[in-house]
Amino acid sequence: MVKIPKSHPRYWSLYYREKIIEGMEKGMTAKAGLIAHGRGEAFDYLIGEKTIEPAERAMKVAVAKFLLAEWPVISVNGNVAALVPEETVELAKVLNAKLEINLFYRTEDRVRAIADELRKYGAKEVLGINPTKRIPGLEHERGKADENGIWKADVVLVPLEDGDRTEALVRMGKFVVTVDLNPLSRSARMADITIVDNIVRAYPRMIELAKEMRKLPREELEDIVRSYDNGKTLSDVLVHIRNRLTRLAEEGIWRKKEI
Amino acid sequence: MVKIPKSHPRYWSLYYREKIIEGMEKGMTAKAGLIAHGRGEAFDYLIGEKTIEPAERAMKVAVAKFLLAEWPVISVNGNVAALVPEETVELAKVLNAKLEINLFYRTEDRVRAIADELRKYGAKEVLGINPTKRIPGLEHERGKADENGIWKADVVLVPLEDGDRTEALVRMGKFVVTVDLNPLSRSARMADITIVDNIVRAYPRMIELAKEMRKLPREELEDIVRSYDNGKTLSDVLVHIRNRLTRLAEEGIWRKKEI
Repeated sequence: MVKIPKSHPRYWSLYYREKIIEGMEKGMTAKAGLIAHGRGEAFDYLIGEKTIEPAERAMKVAVAKFLLAEWPVISVNGNVAALVPEETVELAKVLNAKLEINLFYRTEDRVRAIADELRKYGAKEVLGINPTKRIPGLEHERGKADENGIWKADVVLVPLEDGDRTEALVRMGKFVVTVDLNPLSRSARMADITIVDNIVRAYPRMIELAKEMRKLPREELEDIVRSYDNGKTLSDVLVHIRNRLTRLAEEGIWRKKEI
Repeated sequence: MVKIPKSHPRYWSLYYREKIIEGMEKGMTAKAGLIAHGRGEAFDYLIGEKTIEPAERAMKVAVAKFLLAEWPVISVNGNVAALVPEETVELAKVLNAKLEINLFYRTEDRVRAIADELRKYGAKEVLGINPTKRIPGLEHERGKADENGIWKADVVLVPLEDGDRTEALVRMGKFVVTVDLNPLSRSARMADITIVDNIVRAYPRMIELAKEMRKLPREELEDIVRSYDNGKTLSDVLVHIRNRLTRLAEEGIWRKKEI
């Protein structure tokens, strides 16, 4: 990994960029994953590179829904494994959820590399290695699902997911939670709960929330889920970005060295 | 190239993502170019993945300026060569401009691969292969310029360009046109004309405009250039994005298939 000086004003952004490149070199992350990461970087810049209130709200409801679930599953792809392998394993543990590898550009080598990485961080069971079921409406490779994982799940967390697949899971009747920095993406629009945040901030926060909230009575968790409005969350995120851009537009940007 | 099903609702976005990956495999595009492409995708989402009026306006003025130029040069980097090699060669032809390879992460192998690609699409002369001049204020590798190209040019088109280099060219007194999806980037802010559009839409449109406008008398072209205000263009782009986000926030985007 390239060494970035800690003093660099964009240290964390560059650090995670290197993590994604490292994920590619380990055979986990597809090249298209680098492009998707760049898209995320731009949206993170627009939201201000911090967890905003609508994301905190969505995370709380997502954790409640997972704690109430019968068969909760957390999906893992090449970018997730590159950025937050340890947090993924811990989140699954505190939410009592299964882990399933689920790739858009599926190859057996990538599946193996990701499974190895998850096991390195203590994952006992990794699903999605020999998936035998197919999600209706998706072509062969992209539709694979594990009989004991996503196929059977009532609640799924599919972070950094392709829109087509998110939509197909919703159509199957799954309760779908996503983490996506782009509030306009089809995944963001189609999911039941959309956490518009960087996964490197969201997963640690969700682990904290899960540890606090698992002590709550079921009725309280049910209340949290019942009162949630994902359309409002998405609108609030758009308003947040809009207000940031408005401030910049009013100040004028042409030939400005700093904005 | 990975085959993407034509039925995927984001076919074109995925198609150009594959083009960038192919560019990397051909040795033209750097890894950092993949991430930069992703950042562009984010801003294309925000503007609505179509050519907006301020971009059309900027293109028209840019074409007029090029038709009036004494020594016009179009710069080519690894992402440009991956996305629009054919259009780049054609645009240079209709604008009677020279082509110069100009790389942020310059290696001789990448220069050669890009030159080969441009020649494949009919480029006769490709500059920037043995650059002997240096743009003041940039470190060695990044400052290289061809004596018969950018060095001598009065008007330059530097699409998808690094902000430091755009600024250095402006400081040298060049008239600088850029194509950049991020209206907030330093390139966008520093250029004389900023075309905030996806290059895969902008270049074909500029070729059309050049074919129409080259019949115009010089005075008319001069009028087009004289009345232009790039600060207003940039503000109009930000206002467009802001209004779009406002509308989407008000209408709601949850479970909307099209936005």
